[in-house]
Amino acid sequence: MQPILVLVAPGFEEIELTTPVDIMRQLEIPVTMAGVEGMESEGVHGVVIKADVLLADVDADKFDGIVLPGGAAAWPLRDNPEVVALVRRMYDAGKMVAAICASPMSLQAAGILEGKRITCFPHHPEVPAYFPESVRQCADKVVTDGNIITGKGPGAAFELGFAIGAYLGKEKEIPALQERLCWL
Amino acid sequence: MQPILVLVAPGFEEIELTTPVDIMRQLEIPVTMAGVEGMESEGVHGVVIKADVLLADVDADKFDGIVLPGGAAAWPLRDNPEVVALVRRMYDAGKMVAAICASPMSLQAAGILEGKRITCFPHHPEVPAYFPESVRQCADKVVTDGNIITGKGPGAAFELGFAIGAYLGKEKEIPALQERLCWL
Repeated sequence: MQPILVLVAPGFEEIELTTPVDIMRQLEIPVTMAGVEGMESEGVHGVVIKADVLLADVDADKFDGIVLPGGAAAWPLRDNPEVVALVRRMYDAGKMVAAICASPMSLQAAGILEGKRITCFPHHPEVPAYFPESVRQCADKVVTDGNIITGKGPGAAFELGFAIGAYLGKEKEIPALQERLCWL
Repeated sequence: MQPILVLVAPGFEEIELTTPVDIMRQLEIPVTMAGVEGMESEGVHGVVIKADVLLADVDADKFDGIVLPGGAAAWPLRDNPEVVALVRRMYDAGKMVAAICASPMSLQAAGILEGKRITCFPHHPEVPAYFPESVRQCADKVVTDGNIITGKGPGAAFELGFAIGAYLGKEKEIPALQERLCWL
């Protein structure tokens, strides 16, 4: 398996970034954290994280999927043409595209959500403009539709990690991981 | 309220560090992340985080409590006499002492667990030597006993954050936060 690319941009939501990375690495899924605006980014709650590489140095063909954490980062990610093109390219190659919280906005900007079932963060005043009422009222914390996986918010970060793991062929290892995490 | 000190040491468990910090800051509890062995620490799953200050520069009297994340960091924390003395000093001053996963070992090393009800990570082979069978079989993800709050592992990180918030007087704000996090 090639690694999964996780985007790290200023204003990322800390739980939404670290939890899926932690879970993927515990499932032995290789992960590369790519800094969108530099090697260091400060999260929306003030935690500074160092990326593994700069996004500008990344060859998208060498990754099997992409994860977009949310938080305040969701807006600059959505407005970044390189990020939107990267999401589109991953989707068109049939690779996994995962986003949580407000970051499904980037998937919408990439034009890949037509007819798809997704979920997103329901509480931000700007998010509703992007998605129909049915999306915001989705009862599921995480939704997988084809190669698109979306999650609601920080409180769905574990579930997003498990859904990514299941999509990437680690379904059998997940119950043991949930036990080891004391999550059950 | 004075800030809460969160220890950042190499090998910290990423979810156990970021989740309580995130939740405390969302509850407007001031938090200072103190690097035990330097300003940058790499977590047990490879995420590098920058601390706010060096622990060596911290005046313990200016903090209202301490949180010890677990992971591989739990062993160097337990074996660090300054950390153990700091835990003891916080406890003796009646301040909050919180630890998750294997980090209740540092509380044991500080001699503050006699007669206390706690929980801890049940799966590491070395942890049992520190705690009686009753602790490892505790069904609760988080236990609060007086000023000591303990949590089981990464899957209890949200519950630890909420228990810390409740202990620090934010009980009324927690249901709204859980809703905003999409945790419920």
